[in-house]
Amino acid sequence: MNHAHRSITLPGGFRAAGVACGIKESGKPDLMLLVSDVPCTAAGTFTRNAIVGAAVVVGRRNLVDRGGKGFRAAVCNSGNANVMRIGPDGLADAEAMCRAAAEAAGCEASAVLPASTGIIGRKLPMEKVLAGVADAAGRLEAGAAADRAAADAILTTDLTPKTAVRGVTLPASGTRVTLGGIAKGSGMIAPAMSPPTATMLAFLTTDAAVDPGVLQALLTRATATSFNRISVDSDTSTSDTAYLLASGAAGNPVIDDAGSEDALALAEALGEVCGELAEAIVRDGEGMTKLLRVAVRGAASEEDADRVGRAICDSPLVKCAVHGGDPNWGRFVMAIGKSGAAVDGTRLRVTLGGHAVFTDGVPIDMNDDAEEKLTAALRGDEVRVGVDLRAGDASADWLGCDLSRAYIAINADYRT
Amino acid sequence: MNHAHRSITLPGGFRAAGVACGIKESGKPDLMLLVSDVPCTAAGTFTRNAIVGAAVVVGRRNLVDRGGKGFRAAVCNSGNANVMRIGPDGLADAEAMCRAAAEAAGCEASAVLPASTGIIGRKLPMEKVLAGVADAAGRLEAGAAADRAAADAILTTDLTPKTAVRGVTLPASGTRVTLGGIAKGSGMIAPAMSPPTATMLAFLTTDAAVDPGVLQALLTRATATSFNRISVDSDTSTSDTAYLLASGAAGNPVIDDAGSEDALALAEALGEVCGELAEAIVRDGEGMTKLLRVAVRGAASEEDADRVGRAICDSPLVKCAVHGGDPNWGRFVMAIGKSGAAVDGTRLRVTLGGHAVFTDGVPIDMNDDAEEKLTAALRGDEVRVGVDLRAGDASADWLGCDLSRAYIAINADYRT
Repeated sequence: MNHAHRSITLPGGFRAAGVACGIKESGKPDLMLLVSDVPCTAAGTFTRNAIVGAAVVVGRRNLVDRGGKGFRAAVCNSGNANVMRIGPDGLADAEAMCRAAAEAAGCEASAVLPASTGIIGRKLPMEKVLAGVADAAGRLEAGAAADRAAADAILTTDLTPKTAVRGVTLPASGTRVTLGGIAKGSGMIAPAMSPPTATMLAFLTTDAAVDPGVLQALLTRATATSFNRISVDSDTSTSDTAYLLASGAAGNPVIDDAGSEDALALAEALGEVCGELAEAIVRDGEGMTKLLRVAVRGAASEEDADRVGRAICDSPLVKCAVHGGDPNWGRFVMAIGKSGAAVDGTRLRVTLGGHAVFTDGVPIDMNDDAEEKLTAALRGDEVRVGVDLRAGDASADWLGCDLSRAYIAINADYRT
Repeated sequence: MNHAHRSITLPGGFRAAGVACGIKESGKPDLMLLVSDVPCTAAGTFTRNAIVGAAVVVGRRNLVDRGGKGFRAAVCNSGNANVMRIGPDGLADAEAMCRAAAEAAGCEASAVLPASTGIIGRKLPMEKVLAGVADAAGRLEAGAAADRAAADAILTTDLTPKTAVRGVTLPASGTRVTLGGIAKGSGMIAPAMSPPTATMLAFLTTDAAVDPGVLQALLTRATATSFNRISVDSDTSTSDTAYLLASGAAGNPVIDDAGSEDALALAEALGEVCGELAEAIVRDGEGMTKLLRVAVRGAASEEDADRVGRAICDSPLVKCAVHGGDPNWGRFVMAIGKSGAAVDGTRLRVTLGGHAVFTDGVPIDMNDDAEEKLTAALRGDEVRVGVDLRAGDASADWLGCDLSRAYIAINADYRT
């Protein structure tokens, strides 16, 4: 399917817009509105940070209050996270943003899913936000231009918009359904979303008809194996959010069994969309110059596989070795050992760039030729690490990046 | 007590030496030998990394096998960690190092506590090590010169030797006892030693007479509140070790009750020695330009206080803010929230440099004068952070540092 310029309005039933309303001093787009013509089922995954933005509080509450049903819109501003003003002020502002979107969509305020990203600790400039929602409401449409405007309007320090689409024919019903998504994220990226996330945001749409409980289970699992397996800088934002809206416009029989063939097919496509967006976030990581791709195998549990993947991707010493293209495999083994997973050093096997470097408790003896190949593998734009714990059957694929002077420049050399 | 140039041989009964035996290509000192004239009780705390160096395996085994009694020596080489050759080879080398030290001290090999730090994954050059131990054995003495030589010989990327001493009069027995210590550590510093530890190493001596069980309890507690509350780069080494040897040369009645007055007095002095060494390690942290001092109060448990302290010290975004002198308090609150501790944002209070920035869920409104003071506080060599969770009575003091381009240069711009 070639829909390179499509995303959230590719699935039937959705219209979107992205506008600049002046929240960002730069004048760049900063308000996104997504509207469905029909009531959608919806699901959400949110940051596990104990301090959360007002939009997270309101979005989670709306999902619970409505039982995941009857949603008509999502609204997102960038440039201001409306976070750490979690007193009445911040909540009132998030709710007012929902009311404005609800007016545009012709629904109740509780049928709107909100998100905010950007500077923390400042009051949302509500006059601008409300004017922005009204402006966006007048520009809602389906198509490549709307998708691109929406994808642009949710960005902060990102260098590129991030989009993904998939189509899949549901095997039981024979219905063709589509999925689309946009995402943002560049720094404060070590999502830990719960029911499983930086500020990363993702807005996902599908025209499949899906029961809300099944939809939440699908999004929870897709988040756990995509957004929750990336780390740019090990910091977990207070605003991480992924929303999935299902319009049912494809006309399939409602998917109401998470174990059904159709659910599994949709889950696979959703996993691909989330995986593609997650990789795009890491590739746009602050200051990143090299991608770190970690495949953990043979773990005693998926939790252990995740511990090892996260420990490698989060380790400053590993990240510096990747940055320098240094085949310093000892740092990788150190990170595996400190992960908290059940690791038996005498059974552990580690590969770098496909070359075995450590096995059964001892490093592989290398001749000059082997060392040269290993060094070459570390010098590329993408460094692959393979870990086999030989302790069980569980696995996890993680994505990280190097640590560069540019990361420090981005995060230390400006004043808030 | 002014013993600025004394350390591990200040307590009665100990002699030490440090020599260069050629493990380091630079020719710098790389072998330390500490010998007691009389049998000592001993205690040790070791890294919690699942992958450990051979010296950790042998040192822990010797402590257990001898029930913490009858120790006569500690031996340490720098320049080679003898780690990740944890097959028979590495262990045999660690044991051979102990045998050589035992010959020098006139004791069994099991009465020696070994440590190794430096490059990982390479075989120890045993000919050099054994010649070094023999050389050191011929130079053993007590005094400032020996203490300095010993402190120098355990260093790797450190810029400065690290020493501390304390004297205390035991209140029950009236005996004056002394404590001395040397330490190393600069990178791969986020000790998590167990019974609680980077490669950080510490060798501690006292002339107090202490039962081995009590000695272990004292060292475990002192480690938990000093070495385990520092983080340079969040990476935990495979070789972290602290040893404490008690000669009894002071002649006090043996301290055999961890709750006794004398034990508490010794614990306080030991805590000060370990705290001073821990701070010296952070101040020598790779690339560090500013110290981060975090005081966590009002936690529901000491574990929670440690989670918050560690999360702040480990956060790359906090470290960059400290480096840039940017009063970006939102990053500190983000780190507190992601710590995993029980945090209620509506009760949380945070100060930077003594100035309140966040309280009860909202930032403090600041006028220009207040902002200027805050900025000035962030611009100093030392940044103080105060966190009150208002959830209980537990507390923890943590030490971290900023993240600089120099850290990346040290860890990315050279080839192993």
